[in-house]
Amino acid sequence: MIIRRLGIAVVAFGLAVAGALAQTLPLPENLVGASSDAGEALLVGAEAREAYFPLADNFVTQKTQSFCGVASMTMVFNAMALPAPAVPEYEPFKTFTQDNVLDEATEAVIPRATILKQGMTLDQLGAAIATKPVEASVRHAADSSLDTFRSEARDYLAQKGHFVIVNYLRKAMGQQTGGHISPLAAYDAEADRFLILDVARYKYPPVWVTVADLYAAMNTPDADNDNKTRGYVLIAKKTVQ
Amino acid sequence: MIIRRLGIAVVAFGLAVAGALAQTLPLPENLVGASSDAGEALLVGAEAREAYFPLADNFVTQKTQSFCGVASMTMVFNAMALPAPAVPEYEPFKTFTQDNVLDEATEAVIPRATILKQGMTLDQLGAAIATKPVEASVRHAADSSLDTFRSEARDYLAQKGHFVIVNYLRKAMGQQTGGHISPLAAYDAEADRFLILDVARYKYPPVWVTVADLYAAMNTPDADNDNKTRGYVLIAKKTVQ
Ligand SMILES: [Ca+2]
Ligand SMILES: [Ca+2]
Ligand SMILES: [Ca+2]
Ligand SMILES: [Ca+2]
Repeated sequence: MIIRRLGIAVVAFGLAVAGALAQTLPLPENLVGASSDAGEALLVGAEAREAYFPLADNFVTQKTQSFCGVASMTMVFNAMALPAPAVPEYEPFKTFTQDNVLDEATEAVIPRATILKQGMTLDQLGAAIATKPVEASVRHAADSSLDTFRSEARDYLAQKGHFVIVNYLRKAMGQQTGGHISPLAAYDAEADRFLILDVARYKYPPVWVTVADLYAAMNTPDADNDNKTRGYVLIAKKTVQ
Repeated sequence: MIIRRLGIAVVAFGLAVAGALAQTLPLPENLVGASSDAGEALLVGAEAREAYFPLADNFVTQKTQSFCGVASMTMVFNAMALPAPAVPEYEPFKTFTQDNVLDEATEAVIPRATILKQGMTLDQLGAAIATKPVEASVRHAADSSLDTFRSEARDYLAQKGHFVIVNYLRKAMGQQTGGHISPLAAYDAEADRFLILDVARYKYPPVWVTVADLYAAMNTPDADNDNKTRGYVLIAKKTVQ
């Protein structure tokens, strides 16, 4: 009887530990999950979070395991409320989806078939974004610096209509495993951490990562991009001329 | 020259007004958009918001115009981290999607073909949710009250692992137009408002609605449900026996 109760207690404990992360991989100690109590407190106290709410309202899961860049573009374009294409299922409403965000213009930059096979590099992502009426500035980590990245990304996240997408190597910040792309949503000064809204929602929750860890994970060579380093794209609406 | 500048100013003003809602319908004055400055302040100061972050991390757009109930279930099951089915595209990871959340058990409650044609009623939603290892309590508005609804929903939103899905008539709270289903995410006491994470993201942003407006919109007869009133479903994990 005691043994049986212990067995049940162990099962109950297992369920409790699994908790909010039952379907995603456990986070390494250097990352703070966005829906943990610590993560919530970081967002509430974040010094720069203009990007958070428009992005959270448009958060999507990448459609395939190579569509992280496509999902990130979709989120940012909807968050910016750019003029969107029609969607048959939603007539008469219009919105960006991971299907319609790829069009003739992006096809000329990087074919959909290539993305399906191997994803996008930082430069391809920047060029695909630049096909829309936005200003997109690509920064390779090696051409930036920890301080420049912090300052540029923080300033963008603090302004309405400004967004940042990062391209980083997961394993360099303790995750499994390869190159990845997702939008940043907020910055907290005391913790010196950025919030990544990870579009592989089946794999990891959104995380708060230190600027140092994120910069190190961006400052890695990408074999698919002539070994240039990964980095970030700064995005804002084109100024009306 | 002056006329030309005026023309440009009008265009620029039009773009600015369209702003964050360019792709969604304008909100009536009684509703506060979640990503407006007022909406952000409500979330930061909300008395009950345990549901918000797990739901925001799993926010989806309903897949068709009749899939609001399916999208709401998908969000809540992922937010609760219930054991999820496999998804071929995401192997080896598992997650609920609007495709796999409907299975043999829900088919016996309400066929997928019926949902595609006319959506779900409150009772069908409750029964579909109850096929999973959760406690689901259905409350028709006519069997509840404004005060009971406020108190029950607020208490659920304040507890980890507890969720509320509402079924309401959009036009009764100033939106276009028919019956709709979406999860609640937070409650603010001073404003006496709930945050609805509207799953028709192509049509409306998430909104803060007064308890009175939301209760009135739930307290409407549903012709697809023998004219019983709409209402809400309270959802929590089944207690381990
Ligand atoms: Ca919490
Ligand atoms: Ca802070
Ligand atoms: Ca704001
Ligand atoms: Ca408050």
